[in-house]
Amino acid sequence: MSVVLELGKKAKKAAQAMAVTSTEVKNRALLAMADSLVEQQDRILSENAKDLEEGRRAGLSSALMDRLTLNEKRVGEMAQGLREVAALPDPVGEIVEGWRLPNGLEIQKVRVPLGVIGIIYEARPNVTVDAAGLCVKSGNAVILRGSSSAMNSNRVLAEIIARAAEEAGLPKDCIQLVPTADRESARELMRLHGYVDVLIPRGGEGLIRTVVEESTVPVIETGVGNCHTFVDASADLDMALRIVINAKCQRPGVCNAMETLLVHQEVAERFLPRAAQELRAHGVEIRGCPRTRQLVPDAIEATEEDWRTEYLDLVLAVRVVDSLDEAIDHINTYGSKHSEAIVTGDYSAARRFVREVDAADVYVNASTRFTDGNQFGLGAEIGISTQKLHARGPMSLRELTTTKFVIYGDGQVRE
Amino acid sequence: MSVVLELGKKAKKAAQAMAVTSTEVKNRALLAMADSLVEQQDRILSENAKDLEEGRRAGLSSALMDRLTLNEKRVGEMAQGLREVAALPDPVGEIVEGWRLPNGLEIQKVRVPLGVIGIIYEARPNVTVDAAGLCVKSGNAVILRGSSSAMNSNRVLAEIIARAAEEAGLPKDCIQLVPTADRESARELMRLHGYVDVLIPRGGEGLIRTVVEESTVPVIETGVGNCHTFVDASADLDMALRIVINAKCQRPGVCNAMETLLVHQEVAERFLPRAAQELRAHGVEIRGCPRTRQLVPDAIEATEEDWRTEYLDLVLAVRVVDSLDEAIDHINTYGSKHSEAIVTGDYSAARRFVREVDAADVYVNASTRFTDGNQFGLGAEIGISTQKLHARGPMSLRELTTTKFVIYGDGQVRE
Repeated sequence: MSVVLELGKKAKKAAQAMAVTSTEVKNRALLAMADSLVEQQDRILSENAKDLEEGRRAGLSSALMDRLTLNEKRVGEMAQGLREVAALPDPVGEIVEGWRLPNGLEIQKVRVPLGVIGIIYEARPNVTVDAAGLCVKSGNAVILRGSSSAMNSNRVLAEIIARAAEEAGLPKDCIQLVPTADRESARELMRLHGYVDVLIPRGGEGLIRTVVEESTVPVIETGVGNCHTFVDASADLDMALRIVINAKCQRPGVCNAMETLLVHQEVAERFLPRAAQELRAHGVEIRGCPRTRQLVPDAIEATEEDWRTEYLDLVLAVRVVDSLDEAIDHINTYGSKHSEAIVTGDYSAARRFVREVDAADVYVNASTRFTDGNQFGLGAEIGISTQKLHARGPMSLRELTTTKFVIYGDGQVRE
Repeated sequence: MSVVLELGKKAKKAAQAMAVTSTEVKNRALLAMADSLVEQQDRILSENAKDLEEGRRAGLSSALMDRLTLNEKRVGEMAQGLREVAALPDPVGEIVEGWRLPNGLEIQKVRVPLGVIGIIYEARPNVTVDAAGLCVKSGNAVILRGSSSAMNSNRVLAEIIARAAEEAGLPKDCIQLVPTADRESARELMRLHGYVDVLIPRGGEGLIRTVVEESTVPVIETGVGNCHTFVDASADLDMALRIVINAKCQRPGVCNAMETLLVHQEVAERFLPRAAQELRAHGVEIRGCPRTRQLVPDAIEATEEDWRTEYLDLVLAVRVVDSLDEAIDHINTYGSKHSEAIVTGDYSAARRFVREVDAADVYVNASTRFTDGNQFGLGAEIGISTQKLHARGPMSLRELTTTKFVIYGDGQVRE
């Protein structure tokens, strides 16, 4: 039996026990996991140092090296994250709805854990702890499959939290790490249909694409955010500028940052030169359509490819559109269905944008940067779903559950 | 461009228009579709006759021939089904929840259509009409891919309802049938990631397995039902017998019928001979474990394979178990997570069964035959999901939708 299949079998068994574990025990375990991380910080940092050493030798980019790095502060943040998850309400056991039928049967739709959750992720070792915490709180068993570049860090983190969890009363094997990070182990995990109930890839577009292509386990696609802001003819241009700068510059490397700015032709002349000046002051490179370049002469010429690109960087594609229709059409054609915003003073434009733009999160007069479980008031998130099945938008504890129908009768049979 | 890809592109365009089509227009279209079917009944029956003729020549089984057959009554039922769907409430536009954040942002989670739904189905031409009706009502575009054995019937049905829908004001191409039923067209449909939002296979285990294995489009697994009834030590044995006979015999060929009976050892001697007699009177063949065969000498010996089998026929596997634990364990090992029942008078046994059995629908003292959208009071269903993502149990109109977050602001930006 392969190592991954063995993990799957153990996880399935653990999931059955997890499903009936009380909130009290789960919370105690989360706090114990947090304490353990802090106590064994030195061990964590020394294992992390090995990954960093190998990363240096392999010539990883400074961005990747940064994601890989753990330090006292980051270990503290992981521990704090677990404590915050412990403080969130337990989604399991909620009666979502219920009713009585004419024949006397009583039906309840009850929230239950998904079972076994697989997480495939890249680089950042904190995902090991963050994802495990959310899976535990929602009553699931988790199989973690990190990248080889973070293997030493992931291994020590998983070992510490798994032991603390078990000692605090959680079922054995409720947190497991795939011990190898080769292609084959990922592929096996993706084919564990019947053992893994859902697979959540966290990482770049390439990883997500591979998982969608190869997995027979149901997948929730996360993350890719080619987000737009549309400045309508009736926009308050001061507000528009504030929102544009925030959406592009406040943290350009994340999925809810703006990648393309659309401007209604009626305000392009008044808005674009001013916006370009401020964007430049923030270090943003502008790639514009022909009409944009007339107003912003130093903008680079945008190609079709630019409309499709998630830069995750201080680069912005800009296009002048004739109408609200053209803006909606552009977004529905090129967007990744993540977060889209309109800045407008027009009631019916707002209404149409909200209805006709096909995306997980649609904003009127606000920055797309708010798309986040914590910002929405939902608590820590495991990712942002850009697909339509099961969960859409920020996924918090509730999205790591499913429901079952429970039907209480007194001997009813079907006529 | 392949024919299927072209359908996908057209469907995606139609879906955008469908999403903003009013309930009024959708209902008018459903009623027009119903009227059209009745008016053009002769054409439908003559096309169906071709399929039946080919089926006879190909030597289809009588069960398959029956599923393939249309007649005046069945056309009337399809039309009536559409009228009933028209009368159901529209799920689109429901505000599922909403709240205001401290910074003044107002968040609404709004129900919207999924977009493009693909249905891959076998034999029964009525699925063409039933599935299209549910997809239209829930604001989706649908791509139907039926079996070659029903191609003439499916083609005329799809043509009639698509034309009626368009004439009643629905967007062009909101109902499309894949014009060929070879393996390749199914495979292409399964790979239309980006055009099709969800694929729902309706048919036997082989079809569902293929779709799960090969699809890059998210799939909702439906249907396979290896359902159990557990007669506990404290069961009212008259009630148990009534439930067992109903669950096995009332309609043995459907997914919510019982396939394995589990009996607590303490009541086996009192219950099994009596149950066997009545089951035999209903023509049921019994395959038993060794202890069952001591009590029911003419029972055939059950093999491991029997515990896994969905007979869909007048055959029943029977096993005597030592305890509630063994019953739960058997169900969680061999069941298909569809519908499971306990018959018991014991409060804590009922509570444990409900919590620990991992299935879409868990019954106490009632027949598993109730698992059905109409029986649950949810209206017509497109299938019964046995997976955990998105929808679990009977899927009605609401399960053919997703949600989007709509966020209303006054210029808020993230700190």
